[in-house]
Amino acid sequence: MLVPLFVAIYYREPLEPFIASILVTLLAGLLFSRIKSGVEWQQKEALAIVALSWLSAAIFGAIPFLFEEISFLDAVFETMSGFTSTGSSILVDIEIHSRSLLFWRSFTAWLGGMGIIVLFVAILPKLGVAGRQLFRAEAPGPTEDKLRPRIRETAKVLWKLYIFISAAEVAALVLAGMSLYDALNHTFTCMACAGFSTYNAGIEAFGSPLIEFILTFFMFLAGANFALYYRAIHNKNINVLLRDEEFRAYTYFLLGFTCLLTLVLYKDMEYSVFNSFRYAVFQITSIMTATGFASIDFNLWKDSAKILVFAVMFIGGCAGSTGGGMKVVRFLLMLKYARRELFKFIHPRLVRPIRFNNKAVPDDILQSILSFIVLYIGVFVFSSIFLTLLGVDMISSVTASITTLGNIGPGFNIVGPMANFESIPPLGKIILINNMWVGRLEVYTALVLFTSDFWHS
Amino acid sequence: MLVPLFVAIYYREPLEPFIASILVTLLAGLLFSRIKSGVEWQQKEALAIVALSWLSAAIFGAIPFLFEEISFLDAVFETMSGFTSTGSSILVDIEIHSRSLLFWRSFTAWLGGMGIIVLFVAILPKLGVAGRQLFRAEAPGPTEDKLRPRIRETAKVLWKLYIFISAAEVAALVLAGMSLYDALNHTFTCMACAGFSTYNAGIEAFGSPLIEFILTFFMFLAGANFALYYRAIHNKNINVLLRDEEFRAYTYFLLGFTCLLTLVLYKDMEYSVFNSFRYAVFQITSIMTATGFASIDFNLWKDSAKILVFAVMFIGGCAGSTGGGMKVVRFLLMLKYARRELFKFIHPRLVRPIRFNNKAVPDDILQSILSFIVLYIGVFVFSSIFLTLLGVDMISSVTASITTLGNIGPGFNIVGPMANFESIPPLGKIILINNMWVGRLEVYTALVLFTSDFWHS
Repeated sequence: MLVPLFVAIYYREPLEPFIASILVTLLAGLLFSRIKSGVEWQQKEALAIVALSWLSAAIFGAIPFLFEEISFLDAVFETMSGFTSTGSSILVDIEIHSRSLLFWRSFTAWLGGMGIIVLFVAILPKLGVAGRQLFRAEAPGPTEDKLRPRIRETAKVLWKLYIFISAAEVAALVLAGMSLYDALNHTFTCMACAGFSTYNAGIEAFGSPLIEFILTFFMFLAGANFALYYRAIHNKNINVLLRDEEFRAYTYFLLGFTCLLTLVLYKDMEYSVFNSFRYAVFQITSIMTATGFASIDFNLWKDSAKILVFAVMFIGGCAGSTGGGMKVVRFLLMLKYARRELFKFIHPRLVRPIRFNNKAVPDDILQSILSFIVLYIGVFVFSSIFLTLLGVDMISSVTASITTLGNIGPGFNIVGPMANFESIPPLGKIILINNMWVGRLEVYTALVLFTSDFWHS
Repeated sequence: MLVPLFVAIYYREPLEPFIASILVTLLAGLLFSRIKSGVEWQQKEALAIVALSWLSAAIFGAIPFLFEEISFLDAVFETMSGFTSTGSSILVDIEIHSRSLLFWRSFTAWLGGMGIIVLFVAILPKLGVAGRQLFRAEAPGPTEDKLRPRIRETAKVLWKLYIFISAAEVAALVLAGMSLYDALNHTFTCMACAGFSTYNAGIEAFGSPLIEFILTFFMFLAGANFALYYRAIHNKNINVLLRDEEFRAYTYFLLGFTCLLTLVLYKDMEYSVFNSFRYAVFQITSIMTATGFASIDFNLWKDSAKILVFAVMFIGGCAGSTGGGMKVVRFLLMLKYARRELFKFIHPRLVRPIRFNNKAVPDDILQSILSFIVLYIGVFVFSSIFLTLLGVDMISSVTASITTLGNIGPGFNIVGPMANFESIPPLGKIILINNMWVGRLEVYTALVLFTSDFWHS
């Protein structure tokens, strides 16, 4: 919180919000650090700590918002959206808020992005979250103890990479004509795949195809696996990227949906060829990587174009990225699994293993991916029904649910890209805050806290 | 086709449609029976025959419709909807059509219902379709050969039961004030969980709560497992039903959603308590069992009520019933699986088997159920996107897809309960015909025909 404090000093804006929240957070931190636990940390305790750290970050991070006439619930919504790099906002008029507060908002997203990378690379594999075992399988070293220092090292390298790419993006955006303040804000939320903007009109406010293409490029980078970049640099070989099956699928999905949307926009929305492509590539990359920037109000598009945007919400970015959604690797393995089952049905006696990156995928990993998907869809369906019962229309409910669960940002109708989540009833906001948290923690880590088994044994 | 011929004679309506179609069907039958195959029938051939029998029934059954100014595609849509007991219709004005044709339409559904029961009890278990193994596991007898005569016997008993319950329903409806013709038609489509009506306004045309409650009762019966009835009668013990886990879950789901919808209708639609319950219990039973009758135009309800109707579309009836959807047993096992996975995540070293009817469910059955669900949702998503790209609005596309795949009948918006499927573009109708077929054949049996593995090995 020191960083936005300096921003506030620079712009001569009130310092109280940040000073107050620094004091409260410090105080709470001191209090909690005095609680000493005599118990060894087990799987359960580790789970609880990871899950609750996001929750407490959202609560303490919300304090500065209270100074600008935002209710506590809305403020928690906004910071949870930031730290989980979702990008859904309850701000009705973004531009009336102080520069330091908006900077803090973007900064929470960037910090969240850092947290997500560590979560993926260092913490979740140890807890055995669905599909992360694939990630673990790639790391050399047979025992956990030998792995630990290596993983900590890796996390540090990944952070350096994250900071380096961020710096490159700021430079590119300034060269393309953005002010430094705007460039910093948009880089923060782009690298974290969050998608907050400092303008009500989002990226449309700049009206610059160049800026849009730069952002598209960096969204694409942020949505891919950071560990791959690390290995590509380490081995000085770009083929590491191109040989990775998830990266290839990610690229194909993006290209495929972009082509389809370009066609639909050209045919049904009567844009020029250039504009059809420009909006399509930006919007598909933005939504699939779960960034959520909007270069145009796609809520006004026809349903034929909207359904494609809706569809990519379920795919998401790569594992080990700051992106959201179900993740490309899971989606890919689900498709392979479905195909294998059809094969098994024709040839019941033949065994054909599913391969990923030329290695056979063990059955227990496949099973945990399938159950991840079942749980994910379950949370999505539950919150969609819940919101609709609260009186929100069906399209808004369904898209609000998936956009928060997938940590994307905007949905359709009343939660469209140029609208905001302010009009959702309070109970609905709580459900959506929960969705962001559950989605970011890869479902399991959060959901187990709701089971009685967790607390009673 | 002799039956509608007699109806036509009775009502002095033209006989040509049925005479012509009887001749064509006989001719084709003779032709095909001359093709003699020297190959032993294997899994693949059996699959192809089951899948294609529905397709050919739909094509030959369509002939009578051609005589009443219905295009071939629409006629196939209507008979596929009948034989798969879906109940979706392309008839713009039902009441202008001849009584013999409408009778034929209802009769296709009833015949389809008979076929579905044999499919479930006798054919699919042998082919190993997902989840049907559960059904097989309950039948005594260790080897397939010993089982065969028993299964043929069972199918006959089930048909007798089907005919007996149908007769009881006709009697009840006539006593409640329906004409014999209406009672027969509505019994046919009710027992098959199809939902065709002879009136444009569907069941609302009668405006009688008594008729609605009678239909609700018989829809409930038709949506449960017929083999259970058989065993209950055989053992002279009604507890067979109450002890069955699927039957219990089926009842709980129906009651739960009925209560919820009653509340929502009372609160958001301001009906009286009686009418809220009356519409809720009818509509939930009708949609969950995949019958698709409408006692009111639920398309005019608020989204809070509609989402509940939408939700039960995914559950469906019991295995071994004429109902559609994913089937209660699969839905139930999916929920148990998700719960078990959360448990496993907390206690990685503990093994807790999933139990169904007090027996542990083997892992391969669970896996095949999950892959069934993945494929089912895959087909649903694909056809929703496809329809939307053709220019149909999103709500209509999504509900048309699930209502045909689940063999339900009506959707929302342009395919609402008082509307029809006539306005869907031709390519969309083909996709929906395919959905009905795929859904009725439990996905696998139909989908494998689209794989290259099936044809090339």
